[in-house]
Amino acid sequence: MDSPFILRWGIMGTGNIAKTFTKDLLLSQKWQSDRTISHVVTAVASSSSMEKTRHFVNELRLSSACTNYDSYKFMVADPKVDVVYVATPHSHHFQHVMLALESGKHVLCEKPLTVNAYQARTLCEEARKRNLFLMEAMWTRFLPITSDVLEKIRRGQIGEVLRVVVDTSFGDDVEKTWGTQHRMLNRDLAGGALLDLGIYSLTWIFLCLYHALPESLRQAPSGIAAQMTLNHLTGADEASSILLTFPTSAPNDVPEWKSQAVALTNLRVSTDPDGKNSAGPAIRIQGTKGEIQLDGPSFRPERYRVISRCDGAEGQDIESVKVVDYPVPSEAKGMYWEADEVGRCLRDGKIQSQSLPWEEIIAVLEVMDEARRQGGLIYPEAIENASYSSY
Amino acid sequence: MDSPFILRWGIMGTGNIAKTFTKDLLLSQKWQSDRTISHVVTAVASSSSMEKTRHFVNELRLSSACTNYDSYKFMVADPKVDVVYVATPHSHHFQHVMLALESGKHVLCEKPLTVNAYQARTLCEEARKRNLFLMEAMWTRFLPITSDVLEKIRRGQIGEVLRVVVDTSFGDDVEKTWGTQHRMLNRDLAGGALLDLGIYSLTWIFLCLYHALPESLRQAPSGIAAQMTLNHLTGADEASSILLTFPTSAPNDVPEWKSQAVALTNLRVSTDPDGKNSAGPAIRIQGTKGEIQLDGPSFRPERYRVISRCDGAEGQDIESVKVVDYPVPSEAKGMYWEADEVGRCLRDGKIQSQSLPWEEIIAVLEVMDEARRQGGLIYPEAIENASYSSY
Repeated sequence: MDSPFILRWGIMGTGNIAKTFTKDLLLSQKWQSDRTISHVVTAVASSSSMEKTRHFVNELRLSSACTNYDSYKFMVADPKVDVVYVATPHSHHFQHVMLALESGKHVLCEKPLTVNAYQARTLCEEARKRNLFLMEAMWTRFLPITSDVLEKIRRGQIGEVLRVVVDTSFGDDVEKTWGTQHRMLNRDLAGGALLDLGIYSLTWIFLCLYHALPESLRQAPSGIAAQMTLNHLTGADEASSILLTFPTSAPNDVPEWKSQAVALTNLRVSTDPDGKNSAGPAIRIQGTKGEIQLDGPSFRPERYRVISRCDGAEGQDIESVKVVDYPVPSEAKGMYWEADEVGRCLRDGKIQSQSLPWEEIIAVLEVMDEARRQGGLIYPEAIENASYSSY
Repeated sequence: MDSPFILRWGIMGTGNIAKTFTKDLLLSQKWQSDRTISHVVTAVASSSSMEKTRHFVNELRLSSACTNYDSYKFMVADPKVDVVYVATPHSHHFQHVMLALESGKHVLCEKPLTVNAYQARTLCEEARKRNLFLMEAMWTRFLPITSDVLEKIRRGQIGEVLRVVVDTSFGDDVEKTWGTQHRMLNRDLAGGALLDLGIYSLTWIFLCLYHALPESLRQAPSGIAAQMTLNHLTGADEASSILLTFPTSAPNDVPEWKSQAVALTNLRVSTDPDGKNSAGPAIRIQGTKGEIQLDGPSFRPERYRVISRCDGAEGQDIESVKVVDYPVPSEAKGMYWEADEVGRCLRDGKIQSQSLPWEEIIAVLEVMDEARRQGGLIYPEAIENASYSSY
């Protein structure tokens, strides 16, 4: 066997998501992920304190070859780092990705890539100019279950997909769980349900009604209608609902048909109130010949069902439901698949992943921009602009 | 026992819905419906042919005391008729209800009461002026399961209801099943998914987020956003999705909270593709303490589930799902409950039902008006106006 392609990671930020991702990186070889790629963490940085970095490195038992930083600026300059994983708050993604790109590093940045589409376009231009890899860490797209479902749509197994309904909702006692300063509700940190959770609902909608199509047929939604419930204390959205009309359907055997979609997110009521999936699927992909449903959470589904359409009495004896399981090992979150994709792209000299092209990242952000505009969710100018030096 | 209140019905129209309703009228005494009311069909009218009327009367084995008409005008003048049941196409409801009211008859009219809110207001004013009973035949509101669910919401069993999602969709091969002339898709007959099926989705939303509240707290939606897919041959909607924000939540223990709702309807993809409810509930009523779900079809649910919120590991052993069945006898559709309500109202001298007040009928129609405006569904002026003599 050829020796694997070694990818050297610099971790920017030491919060929960950074921990989860890094754990998964280390598990990549253990599980069924891509054995042609090998991940090494060569640097970790907290922006504020070496103490935080050391704690992170010790907790995850990273090797002594890993350099600790208390500055992002110095970490991104480390020649032992190939790719920077940005795990800072949404509000800071633009600045931090730009910092990494300007130091000549490839970047994987937590979702959403930026606060708005304009910032994302600016970053993609910069990455193209510098010939550097850039991707949003929308890990859900790289789960094996996701590819399998997409393949079924493309093959027309449920006919023409004409509606997709996705819900990504936590039933929190908002004030008690998050308070007003946490990034979940703090507008200064680009807080709110849409950017944090709703993006998964939109991701599934784009996967089914945009990404499932050949590139030449992919079209952004022709209609976007959104309503938001803004938290009465912070003004961030605690509930967002978005209706979308796509000018296409997938697999597009009937070119004149359109599709509709509903993207839901809510902090106060839950997709899954009893934590056992009793309430039903989080994702319904509805086609003319049947339906694919995925149990939630939408960001990491582990089971799907294909429900075939049965018309009339003669269909009654046919088993109409097929269940397929894709368990993720319980010690992992399931982020190593996206990390492997980064490795493959870098190995093959690609600056964007075909599973999540820049155009699509931007298209999803454009929907969120419009939803926020209609819903009245405004962030401070300092985090909306694309002025690198301003922050 | 006192002798029952006898209600003498004139049936206007001899199509499928008239047959279904009349059968249920005759079954009323047999099943668990209100035994203080007795229904008699004293007249049946087709507008075009005595043949159709005779066929109807024979097929349903109506008594010989029933008079046959080939004219609505003469039927509504029949002194043996107390209340007229209008079962003609939506497009003609305004004219036919007005005809009955002008003859001094009480009216139960198939849903939607009229094509738009303006026509409905005009009819309600006429009924009030003449002191005549008028109600839309939204039979779903009078099912025992519906009262039970509403009572649970009012008692706060699932906490504050913050989102309601309802889908009423048939997966038809539209062109083959309906063609372009059928009222389902014919704009001249006020065709389209919204007025025919979507009204049930809206009904459940209004039940939960409007009707469940005390009258003084009921408020029409503060936000309405709709998207429609118009049939490329007729221009009637084959798919409609509506987002609603209500300025209240129910039972309204937290007055500053708002609720959101999603009303869906679709002719090409189905709520229930295999006809076994495998795809999950048609109605999700989501509260802060749990959820009530109803299996479809939304117009006649026969089962609901209460899913209680379980947080954390200690909840895992608690049975979180409670199932309640309300089977409707298979020979009936379940419309006798609404017929009994008409009887009780007339017996008690009421001109509107508190279970479906005029204000609420109009509020639902106003949502449909706005949805059609946003979705670009326009009906011919002749069926939109409220000029009685014009038709």
